[in-house]
Amino acid sequence: MIKRISSDSDAAQPVLVVGSVAFDNVVTPHGSQDRILGGAASYCSFAASYFADPLMVGVVGNDFGEEFVERLRSRDIDLEGLQRDESGPTFFWKGQYHENFNRRDTLDIQLNVFEQFRPDLPQAYKDTPYVLLGNIHPALQAHVLDQLDGEEAYVLADTIDLWINVERDSLLSLIKRVNLFVINDSEAEEITSESNLILAGRKLREMGPETVIVKKGEHGAVLFHEDGLFALPAYPVTELRDPTGAGDSFAGALLGRLASRNRRDFTAIKEAMVYGTAVASLTVEAFGCDRLESAGNAIIEQRAKELRDLVCIH
Amino acid sequence: MIKRISSDSDAAQPVLVVGSVAFDNVVTPHGSQDRILGGAASYCSFAASYFADPLMVGVVGNDFGEEFVERLRSRDIDLEGLQRDESGPTFFWKGQYHENFNRRDTLDIQLNVFEQFRPDLPQAYKDTPYVLLGNIHPALQAHVLDQLDGEEAYVLADTIDLWINVERDSLLSLIKRVNLFVINDSEAEEITSESNLILAGRKLREMGPETVIVKKGEHGAVLFHEDGLFALPAYPVTELRDPTGAGDSFAGALLGRLASRNRRDFTAIKEAMVYGTAVASLTVEAFGCDRLESAGNAIIEQRAKELRDLVCIH
Repeated sequence: MIKRISSDSDAAQPVLVVGSVAFDNVVTPHGSQDRILGGAASYCSFAASYFADPLMVGVVGNDFGEEFVERLRSRDIDLEGLQRDESGPTFFWKGQYHENFNRRDTLDIQLNVFEQFRPDLPQAYKDTPYVLLGNIHPALQAHVLDQLDGEEAYVLADTIDLWINVERDSLLSLIKRVNLFVINDSEAEEITSESNLILAGRKLREMGPETVIVKKGEHGAVLFHEDGLFALPAYPVTELRDPTGAGDSFAGALLGRLASRNRRDFTAIKEAMVYGTAVASLTVEAFGCDRLESAGNAIIEQRAKELRDLVCIH
Repeated sequence: MIKRISSDSDAAQPVLVVGSVAFDNVVTPHGSQDRILGGAASYCSFAASYFADPLMVGVVGNDFGEEFVERLRSRDIDLEGLQRDESGPTFFWKGQYHENFNRRDTLDIQLNVFEQFRPDLPQAYKDTPYVLLGNIHPALQAHVLDQLDGEEAYVLADTIDLWINVERDSLLSLIKRVNLFVINDSEAEEITSESNLILAGRKLREMGPETVIVKKGEHGAVLFHEDGLFALPAYPVTELRDPTGAGDSFAGALLGRLASRNRRDFTAIKEAMVYGTAVASLTVEAFGCDRLESAGNAIIEQRAKELRDLVCIH
């Protein structure tokens, strides 16, 4: 058993994580790397694993070797929900970041076994009180919610611009059912047709989710909650290597932290955003999940403290 | 006598403000306005006037009517240093903001009496302990410093990209003599050739100024100080009308607040940034100085409180 970051709480709960598992090929101005373990479910689960027990739901193909399974298992990620489809290879994505990492192009995408993926939950997962819906098709995200027992789960959902463009109605139905909707600034503008971020965040809350977090990359994130507004800067990263998975890491650590304390109130979400930001800063300092997986508890606590100092006025 | 915002201190000091005084013609997506009282010295002095006694140094021309003088005087701004040059009209600037206010074009600029301006200080101004050098030619900024008595003045300097491009050496000499250098993110990148803002801020400190603040517009500002790093978000403005003068208002209120407490330490600068941000948020909600001039102390205190709440984790 690995040691999770202490929450001073006996109330720790597991986190259900649903999303893609992928092999990525990432090209950056400073180099490239092939066959990186990636996908939202991988990043989210690794990030959540510092705080809570992740229950991972996804699909891998016939090329997903035991060494990759072992990497997930070594972070005590429960893999009962990780389907293996021997009919083809794992989801593959190739992307390129340009100078200053301001723009990302998808160079190649092969859905492979992910094309037929249905996130069917093992019986033991159905009453998980914290649920992270990574950025898969909104109908699949809804399918996960349909399988949950009871009404008590706290649900965080992420999405990507693709679904805003091609599955808008499905996405709008989905977000009415989630507690915490996490998206980036350009996506927030796209959904709401509102370029002022504060107004966009308010509009999003009117569209259903009780709480919204808008991520602004290097400029941090803003929380819209019925009890108020909260703005947190990004951790001051000076060695950006690969931004892939930053948002997933943020969401995974955030929900993991909430689950570890079994709290969902305004103050708890703000505190969890600090951990989400700290963990995301580690992810982007290396290719893929490398630094995220191996970071250890101490550096996360250290960065969370640095972030608290960074915003401390007195 | 107007009532300045209380600093709970008997140590309040005046602020010397040097910069342009202008008539602006501003075009925005939501309308335009002509013959706006503008210029760095106007915005800085109005902003500082909420906290400390501003001593204003600048030049106006033969078209600068008594009603404009009266507006400055009504904020108890000392005008002994405001030169009147009857040989021509006041500095004129016409600018246009585009959709989302992300880009500004200068449509017309007429230096007029500003072309021959030399910021000669009245004797009574020479020992002012807080000095704000608005964005005029760096040689003129240096000329102000040359006239100061003693070595004890705390000097804040601002600049614009023009001087980085055409007077780089002069600017680099100047910033070695200032305590607090305030600059926006694109200018920081331009001076240092460093696109990572954290590294750019550190480099700027190595170039001379003991303290640096990098402004990021709607994303707030970052303070680089020997005692640490501090990040403050912008006030969540939802009714942006005219961003002109936001940076000057920030600097004026910031230095005014420091002067009102006669403090220059890390904590005092962080606290003063909150007031700078609050005052700048008022400036951008109307054309020119309109809202800045008439805001009143209560709304500034209110917004400073909202900002403290906005970043409060617990």
